[in-house]
Amino acid sequence: MTIERRTLLRGLSAVPVAAGMTGLSGVESALADDVPAGFPQPTRHLQLYAVELPAYDDEVRLGYGHDPDKASYPGPTIEMLEGECIAITLHNEVSKETLQKLRTDKEIPLGVSLHPHGVRYNRTSDGTLHSNSYVAPGKKRTYIWYARPPARKRGIAGTAGYWWYHDHMVGTAHGTAGLNAGLYGALIVRRKSDPLPKHTYVTAMGDGMTLNGRRYPDTDTYDMENPKRSNTSIVANQGERIEFVNLALGSELHTWHLHGHNWADTRTGVISDVPWADDIRIIDNKTIGPGDSFGFQVIAGEMSGPGHWMLHCHLQTHSDMGMSTFFHVHKKNGDPPPGHPPNHDGHTGM
Amino acid sequence: MTIERRTLLRGLSAVPVAAGMTGLSGVESALADDVPAGFPQPTRHLQLYAVELPAYDDEVRLGYGHDPDKASYPGPTIEMLEGECIAITLHNEVSKETLQKLRTDKEIPLGVSLHPHGVRYNRTSDGTLHSNSYVAPGKKRTYIWYARPPARKRGIAGTAGYWWYHDHMVGTAHGTAGLNAGLYGALIVRRKSDPLPKHTYVTAMGDGMTLNGRRYPDTDTYDMENPKRSNTSIVANQGERIEFVNLALGSELHTWHLHGHNWADTRTGVISDVPWADDIRIIDNKTIGPGDSFGFQVIAGEMSGPGHWMLHCHLQTHSDMGMSTFFHVHKKNGDPPPGHPPNHDGHTGM
Amino acid sequence: MTIERRTLLRGLSAVPVAAGMTGLSGVESALADDVPAGFPQPTRHLQLYAVELPAYDDEVRLGYGHDPDKASYPGPTIEMLEGECIAITLHNEVSKETLQKLRTDKEIPLGVSLHPHGVRYNRTSDGTLHSNSYVAPGKKRTYIWYARPPARKRGIAGTAGYWWYHDHMVGTAHGTAGLNAGLYGALIVRRKSDPLPKHTYVTAMGDGMTLNGRRYPDTDTYDMENPKRSNTSIVANQGERIEFVNLALGSELHTWHLHGHNWADTRTGVISDVPWADDIRIIDNKTIGPGDSFGFQVIAGEMSGPGHWMLHCHLQTHSDMGMSTFFHVHKKNGDPPPGHPPNHDGHTGM
Repeated sequence: MTIERRTLLRGLSAVPVAAGMTGLSGVESALADDVPAGFPQPTRHLQLYAVELPAYDDEVRLGYGHDPDKASYPGPTIEMLEGECIAITLHNEVSKETLQKLRTDKEIPLGVSLHPHGVRYNRTSDGTLHSNSYVAPGKKRTYIWYARPPARKRGIAGTAGYWWYHDHMVGTAHGTAGLNAGLYGALIVRRKSDPLPKHTYVTAMGDGMTLNGRRYPDTDTYDMENPKRSNTSIVANQGERIEFVNLALGSELHTWHLHGHNWADTRTGVISDVPWADDIRIIDNKTIGPGDSFGFQVIAGEMSGPGHWMLHCHLQTHSDMGMSTFFHVHKKNGDPPPGHPPNHDGHTGM
Repeated sequence: MTIERRTLLRGLSAVPVAAGMTGLSGVESALADDVPAGFPQPTRHLQLYAVELPAYDDEVRLGYGHDPDKASYPGPTIEMLEGECIAITLHNEVSKETLQKLRTDKEIPLGVSLHPHGVRYNRTSDGTLHSNSYVAPGKKRTYIWYARPPARKRGIAGTAGYWWYHDHMVGTAHGTAGLNAGLYGALIVRRKSDPLPKHTYVTAMGDGMTLNGRRYPDTDTYDMENPKRSNTSIVANQGERIEFVNLALGSELHTWHLHGHNWADTRTGVISDVPWADDIRIIDNKTIGPGDSFGFQVIAGEMSGPGHWMLHCHLQTHSDMGMSTFFHVHKKNGDPPPGHPPNHDGHTGM
Repeated sequence: MTIERRTLLRGLSAVPVAAGMTGLSGVESALADDVPAGFPQPTRHLQLYAVELPAYDDEVRLGYGHDPDKASYPGPTIEMLEGECIAITLHNEVSKETLQKLRTDKEIPLGVSLHPHGVRYNRTSDGTLHSNSYVAPGKKRTYIWYARPPARKRGIAGTAGYWWYHDHMVGTAHGTAGLNAGLYGALIVRRKSDPLPKHTYVTAMGDGMTLNGRRYPDTDTYDMENPKRSNTSIVANQGERIEFVNLALGSELHTWHLHGHNWADTRTGVISDVPWADDIRIIDNKTIGPGDSFGFQVIAGEMSGPGHWMLHCHLQTHSDMGMSTFFHVHKKNGDPPPGHPPNHDGHTGM
């Protein structure tokens, strides 16, 4: 229970409490009637807003946010503990005009939705057109997700893993335009025994994108003098346990490569002190197709030391195009690594 | 032995006994001379016919069948038990004219073949041009496959897995035209201890295809009032153990995603009640390249309940093109889920 | 220690000792000062030369070699034992003119580099532009790699695996032109308990290439009468333990398929005599994206017998283009398999 509380609190700390959620008491009683058979009562009720963000040139950009003024892409990372059930109310604040502009099929009604990977949900929380579980402009809808624990005696897998959530409605019945515009985010389901990282970074690989689903030159906003931690400023002090979550969207192949580090190809990237660990593959480059997501934990600069470590798609056409950023590992005391930080092309720096 | 018999019988039940195979006594004695050193005697002798099926417009479509009148694509699913050896006689009933039409290299003789994945076979059962193990029009040839059990003390892997078989001769020495036309099917090798599903569904992902290797609009022939079970009508009652086998052919990347369910990324998708299960990744979306095949078992609607659950390639260009169908999960009593079934575009349904 | 020595000796035997390396005593004392904190002293000091090789038509081809006169692509396979630290001095013998010809970005200085996968190294051994760890024409630079052993109580993965090394500097800051020209090789890190193969073959899959990173018609230089063992003449006697290492570069998807054999999808391809082996997937076709590498050991012709076994990318466009070769398995006594060897198209042979 201590671990559970710590985990939940940590999860909560990532979102504005006021707008983002309310306590147990805040779960609307009406909601209880909608909890599917076999699901426990939701322990938290999150608010999620789909909003329009500043465009790149003429390219529409959308984002999810617990607070409409703090929407982003990727959207806020949602953390759950295996065994937990949560409720999420999605508010569609994307204008009818924008949705019309993105729609490629006139037969599809206008709306946005929320479709999760990994967790269990009923058809009414599928976030799809045919199940009518989307949200029309100006409306809202509550989705219920259950991080079902394993039932191994029955051969049923659990939910712990690095997942993601996304729109399944904008543009086509598969949400192609919504995904491309930025309506996605990471979903982490932890097992009680999992170690907790010092910080989690989310990267996203999509068609013609840099990492973080960004367009060049926003790949890396790192400031060596004042290193803030965000998905566009991936920084750590040597020795910190850092978690990476990567998701892929769109229609292209990608491979995710990090310099100076490696990890076990397991559920968490951590290798246990167990005999079967000897059979497990260790990797530093992972093939990921659209819809896949994975994550792992590493000790920043373990043995490799401080440095601006490249993090890029290993498809040469993608990395050369700009699908590349840096994992900036500072010294244990927080001092920056030697030399100047590289620019987006990796041209400068000593 | 009880399990073995059950498994074999179940395997047999999927094919017309009369045309599809004969009992042990039916294995031609002549065949015995051809059984490779180290292989046990074949326990079954299947007949497989390669035939021409009705074309799409001008597109030639071919299929394998245990009965020439019942050929299909994917071809019949062949089930073996690890440790079993079987004989398969391939009859080439595809016309010389059709094979000439599909041939891109005049140096290659006309023929069809049978090349399996996973199982052991000698060079004479390779199904390739250079080994002369193909079948000319109007001729037949017997192939011998052995589902070699593990020899773990010697570090030798077994054969249990979700495999496939295909032509390696039509069009090019790699069977490119044969595969594209439909000459492929699933091959399941079970371990005695494996659970048996209530029903097995086979999907196939190829260039410009929908799932099931079909061309739109044949993706889903589901009838809610009279739900027949076939590879184009993927249906189950909530609580049933269902097996999915997916294979990829052609030259494109695909990812296989199922809504409302997840599975362990193991040999069977089932997670054992063992300590190492904690390190195993749970997935609901799997990257699959041409030549790969995988399968898993799930409990239909476990926690997620009845519904028309989307099953699609997560490459947005593929799903939008029509590489998408549904896993129709009825109620435990067989009653259909609420609302109307979605059409091929997922437009309708409540 | 006995095993370690055997392993190391085997590793050494693959490279010309005189030019390739010197004994422990030969590790320059100056080097000691550069050994990163936490790394043991290097046990070997390899020399590696980047040189220009004969072009295909106008296409520049480069290679790495322990001896400048013996450079090749893939470069020499480097073997390490988990726990070992080695030093490698890279000599850039590629002309300024050639590097200018390959450079696509005038802002990038001319040079070649050495970037490894899997092992630990400091920023000064990263082999990248921004870290100034590349080598200008006519210069040399020493890199230090550490095959860090597992620290499982701390959840830290080891290094044992099938990795690769490559240029990260030629053409672009990601080495795109260097990789395409041939500056890459396999890196094997063994665990003391790993079995040693009779022979190791390296294949490489890249854009528009055959296997072995070759251009047609150099795929297969096999001579049945006088079967030499090289990466373009993949041969074995039935029953020999053979190791395959495959790496992917460039920007395309590939799948690696071998006829007549299968292997466990583990770190080594060998399946242990342990309970968890039952959950491990057995494969004979593996999807591999750029930057990925994998390897496995098999017993040549185990049950499947002698034969010219196809080894090809299962993307039909790739295999038809020529990304296909053969694993020539001779009889136990070394006699060739029946029939004539196939040509590059697999047209001939009995």
